[in-house]
Amino acid sequence: MNSTPELFWISGSPFSWRVLLMLEAKRIPYVPKLLEASKGEHKTPDFLALNPRGKVPVLRDGDFVLSESLAIMQYLECRFPAVPMFGRTSAETGLICRVISEYTSYLHHPMARVWSPVLTGKSESLAGDIQSAVPEVSAELARMEDCLTRKPWLADDAMSAADVSVYPFFKLLLRAASKKEAGRFELGLLPFESHYPALDAWIKRVEALPGYERTYPPHWR
Amino acid sequence: MNSTPELFWISGSPFSWRVLLMLEAKRIPYVPKLLEASKGEHKTPDFLALNPRGKVPVLRDGDFVLSESLAIMQYLECRFPAVPMFGRTSAETGLICRVISEYTSYLHHPMARVWSPVLTGKSESLAGDIQSAVPEVSAELARMEDCLTRKPWLADDAMSAADVSVYPFFKLLLRAASKKEAGRFELGLLPFESHYPALDAWIKRVEALPGYERTYPPHWR
Repeated sequence: MNSTPELFWISGSPFSWRVLLMLEAKRIPYVPKLLEASKGEHKTPDFLALNPRGKVPVLRDGDFVLSESLAIMQYLECRFPAVPMFGRTSAETGLICRVISEYTSYLHHPMARVWSPVLTGKSESLAGDIQSAVPEVSAELARMEDCLTRKPWLADDAMSAADVSVYPFFKLLLRAASKKEAGRFELGLLPFESHYPALDAWIKRVEALPGYERTYPPHWR
Repeated sequence: MNSTPELFWISGSPFSWRVLLMLEAKRIPYVPKLLEASKGEHKTPDFLALNPRGKVPVLRDGDFVLSESLAIMQYLECRFPAVPMFGRTSAETGLICRVISEYTSYLHHPMARVWSPVLTGKSESLAGDIQSAVPEVSAELARMEDCLTRKPWLADDAMSAADVSVYPFFKLLLRAASKKEAGRFELGLLPFESHYPALDAWIKRVEALPGYERTYPPHWR
């Protein structure tokens, strides 16, 4: 297949961001197709023909169309094996996938209960739920902090799909924490470099990756 | 590595079940280590040393220990490539992983809001939540029903990791729906073969796989 993959994405979508980071890290040539969520460009008939759920990211590679960020990442790993991101051995693959599963199973929902209401102007009505999510978030961050004091990347000594899968969600959390509306909550996050120095250093490591700047949400600048 | 993998599991744990089905489907020799949840065998110091979260499944393969069902499945795929379950091409891999991601993202939580309270004797106190989850469950089941009218397996013409990943959760849902306590809810599930004939046929297809009987929860018999 000689096609150049196109990635349909939305600025600030963490699910899109993890795929963009993977494309950059694997040095895969791609055509970014930025959709304007405010104009409903992810709900047009053309886009719904690609993904009936109307969600990003969607990858189109020749005639092949794929949605769901983790599926796209696995696809890219097989299609462009040159820079492995899901490990070189069975054990590496297992550990990388474990980190991603742990994020999805234990951290994603509690973290989203914090960032989502803050970033969508619902922190007032959902104040109780935000505060009640904090202990779960803190417990999981403490696990990750501990893990990152012993190695530079989440799954291993090398940067992997685990790091790019999880990173964008931390940026959403920290963006929410920095908002004025978040001031009334005891999130225990800021200053992040004091509370979680190893996680903070890991974030800076991801941000130093080549191509990172091209993945940064344009509307955040 | 010449070790025979050991799988620590609990009867009726859907996360364990998907790994057992994969081990059988790939014809991997393994040692099943059945833990008794009622005796707290997944919370002993020995088991917590394998998985500090105290959750099953856990795979031990020689010195290598891995938790999280999907990570174990990816590990097994790399370690025992002979019978591929995650596809033979990039596109197959992508589609299989998409089905698994869609289950996790859109169906798992609504379905768990039905089966979990019914199977743990909380259907009275969580009645409102159970009923409110039904439309989401129905919408996703309708999508899958539609997909299975066009092909025999969830991701493709061949049985794959997608089928064994999703199947056990359907069994939990149907088990819950068949309980007396579920009678007061309008779940729209039973008789399943009338409401969802293609899904019902798919369930029977999974249950006809060689080795299936060895994976059936002993305490359900």
